[in-house]
Amino acid sequence: MFQPARGTRDFLPDEMRRHNWVIDNIRDVFEAYGYDPLGTPAFESWDMLKIKSGEDAVNQIYYFRDKSDRELGLRFEWTASLARVVASHRELPKPFKRYAIGPVWRYERPSEMSRREFWQMDVDVVGVPDPIADAEVIAVAVDCLRRIGFEDFIIRLNDRRLLEALAEAAGLPVDRYFDIFRAVDKMDKIGYEGVLEELSRLGAPTGASEKLLEMTSSKGDPGRVLEGARADLKGLQKGMMSCETLSSIVECSKGFGIEKFMVVDLGLARGLDYYTGPVFEIYDEEFEGAGSIAGGGRYDELVELFGGDPTPMTGISMGVWRLVTLLEKKGVFDGLDLGPRAYVVYASEGLRFKAVEVAQTLRRAGISTEMDLLGRGIGKQLDIANKKGVKKVVIVGERELEEGCVALRDMETAEQRNVRLYRLLEEF
Amino acid sequence: MFQPARGTRDFLPDEMRRHNWVIDNIRDVFEAYGYDPLGTPAFESWDMLKIKSGEDAVNQIYYFRDKSDRELGLRFEWTASLARVVASHRELPKPFKRYAIGPVWRYERPSEMSRREFWQMDVDVVGVPDPIADAEVIAVAVDCLRRIGFEDFIIRLNDRRLLEALAEAAGLPVDRYFDIFRAVDKMDKIGYEGVLEELSRLGAPTGASEKLLEMTSSKGDPGRVLEGARADLKGLQKGMMSCETLSSIVECSKGFGIEKFMVVDLGLARGLDYYTGPVFEIYDEEFEGAGSIAGGGRYDELVELFGGDPTPMTGISMGVWRLVTLLEKKGVFDGLDLGPRAYVVYASEGLRFKAVEVAQTLRRAGISTEMDLLGRGIGKQLDIANKKGVKKVVIVGERELEEGCVALRDMETAEQRNVRLYRLLEEF
Repeated sequence: MFQPARGTRDFLPDEMRRHNWVIDNIRDVFEAYGYDPLGTPAFESWDMLKIKSGEDAVNQIYYFRDKSDRELGLRFEWTASLARVVASHRELPKPFKRYAIGPVWRYERPSEMSRREFWQMDVDVVGVPDPIADAEVIAVAVDCLRRIGFEDFIIRLNDRRLLEALAEAAGLPVDRYFDIFRAVDKMDKIGYEGVLEELSRLGAPTGASEKLLEMTSSKGDPGRVLEGARADLKGLQKGMMSCETLSSIVECSKGFGIEKFMVVDLGLARGLDYYTGPVFEIYDEEFEGAGSIAGGGRYDELVELFGGDPTPMTGISMGVWRLVTLLEKKGVFDGLDLGPRAYVVYASEGLRFKAVEVAQTLRRAGISTEMDLLGRGIGKQLDIANKKGVKKVVIVGERELEEGCVALRDMETAEQRNVRLYRLLEEF
Repeated sequence: MFQPARGTRDFLPDEMRRHNWVIDNIRDVFEAYGYDPLGTPAFESWDMLKIKSGEDAVNQIYYFRDKSDRELGLRFEWTASLARVVASHRELPKPFKRYAIGPVWRYERPSEMSRREFWQMDVDVVGVPDPIADAEVIAVAVDCLRRIGFEDFIIRLNDRRLLEALAEAAGLPVDRYFDIFRAVDKMDKIGYEGVLEELSRLGAPTGASEKLLEMTSSKGDPGRVLEGARADLKGLQKGMMSCETLSSIVECSKGFGIEKFMVVDLGLARGLDYYTGPVFEIYDEEFEGAGSIAGGGRYDELVELFGGDPTPMTGISMGVWRLVTLLEKKGVFDGLDLGPRAYVVYASEGLRFKAVEVAQTLRRAGISTEMDLLGRGIGKQLDIANKKGVKKVVIVGERELEEGCVALRDMETAEQRNVRLYRLLEEF
């Protein structure tokens, strides 16, 4: 028997309905904020994918050649394709706010949360250097998460340039920033000693590393943490500037009503190489240990790297399956009724086509309606309606039809009464 | 500058909104008919893809190996994955009615209508041998097409076994059915002489081929065409049975209200190898020459081929981009307003955060709302709102705010009046 390819899985209807419910709600919020949909292909040229990614990412890309020997790869995230479009379509009015929802593919060790095919939902703002854009994408994500049942958040902020400046102030080698970020980013995974060891492998003196880790352990109230950072920075210009940027993001967040969730976390680095300024991650307060439920940052150099004009960009990303999994733990789906709303039952074989007509009336009014296609008896039909969790069953019977009626049965109370056919829609 | 990979393309926002509008409407109809979503991965094992496809199809599959040298391929249609799931999940209650919407990939010569990445929308009924299932999937497609603006249809029906029987009655070689079907299917592309030539290459005597093409040229009113076919069949059992099946589909279609569009077309073959009974195609009456806008058929042997229990299946498929293109020709999108509904303008820089608050109120009520993020002047902001085709602009000004108001401007009439902030939502 064939199975899904290694690292991929099927989503049977109950799971898929949850998946779709999350996507539909989040897309509504994306559109409410005026983000535009953009469609880009599942695979891109290998040359392009290589440019943007660090080595880790390149190793994770599904690579193949088409029948003309062109080198291609499956997209492993959405940002490279966006940057390609922005670089080659100079005519796109700025700001260009776009969303993308769909699968991406990474050749990773499969685990419960990380799979080789997973759906990501991104919003990005193209062409706005001002921190209001960073604040907006964070606000979009918060509203998305609220819409689907999350309530309290921790929004962690940092700035790549601030981290650079702190590393410089601590005396770490200035030519190894990306490696330093990646090391610092692993604190949760490999612990304090592990990070120290990695930094030492990068040629950092132990004293300097300890100093950096002490500085980056500061997190909490933005005002307080940034004040401490400013003192540590000894006036280093780019560090002071990014403290300003972070303050601005917090200030802008007030209009969006999300400043109460914000903390500055000087240890937040995020793995990807291409961030150039603010980075941010959102956690569910109740399930902080489960990892971030949204994350992003500013990447002002990517479009240039793709041959376009210098273009500031910032964005945030959420993974569908991580959200579904957490919502299941929170019990959000328990009260949701995502299956068909009506089941039309026919009392005898001769009434089957009449039942089709009744079902069609409901369907054309947008009411999700099922009926039997296998010629089963009425008891069996009711049984199936029950198993499908349908609340309202319409019974098409000879006697009722003679009076221009059908019987409407409430499957929860087992109450049943006759309803005139032309008034059936009002019951839904 | 990087371009999309050969044969693929980007969908900029205006196009993507149309694409999404078609999908959203069609998914609503799928769900109204009680079809369940099923998610299957973009790539499948090569062994599995190979089993189901004819040689043509295998040549069109994007093949690759993962980093453990597993042979994989991108899905080139949805049915194989469905059959895999049905074969390996015996516990799925039957009938299993599922829909799938997403991209498929085929290595074909790119043209306006056929691309290497294109979105297909499928419904299939698993476990119902009765023609009511064929009639239902056709009805689903018709309702989908009606929902998005199509009005009059030609539904062509035929049956693979009938075509086989006619070929046998005409004296063609009985061991080359698939090739014969493929040849007959090319009538529109290569013409009568071309088909004759292909049949002759298959070893068919010219007289027999001419006889077959005469019989298969019969199309029109189901009763009349089937009567003629019965006469041609000289009593061949499987042919007579499939005439019964086609009559039943037409009969069932009455309940669904679509029998008036139905014709039997004895020349309809459809390219794919795996159909085992009825096949059908839907054409827009106005654009018949543009090709079918939906097509499908019954394939009762596929699940067994995948190692599962014998399971009857029937389904129908529509291509998103073909529909979008025809709807554009029909002018369906001209009256549709798919962009943002509101634009919030601020009269001076100091009111920017207040404008954010106003925008948030609208957004949280589900009203798609844009505002300026670049600190532009009020004239420029109004200009952009106009370019985006926004109908209602909310102007946040000092004087109005003092009275607890904002100004609401109708961009079509240029009328402007003050509205109390707490009553703003009522205006949308």
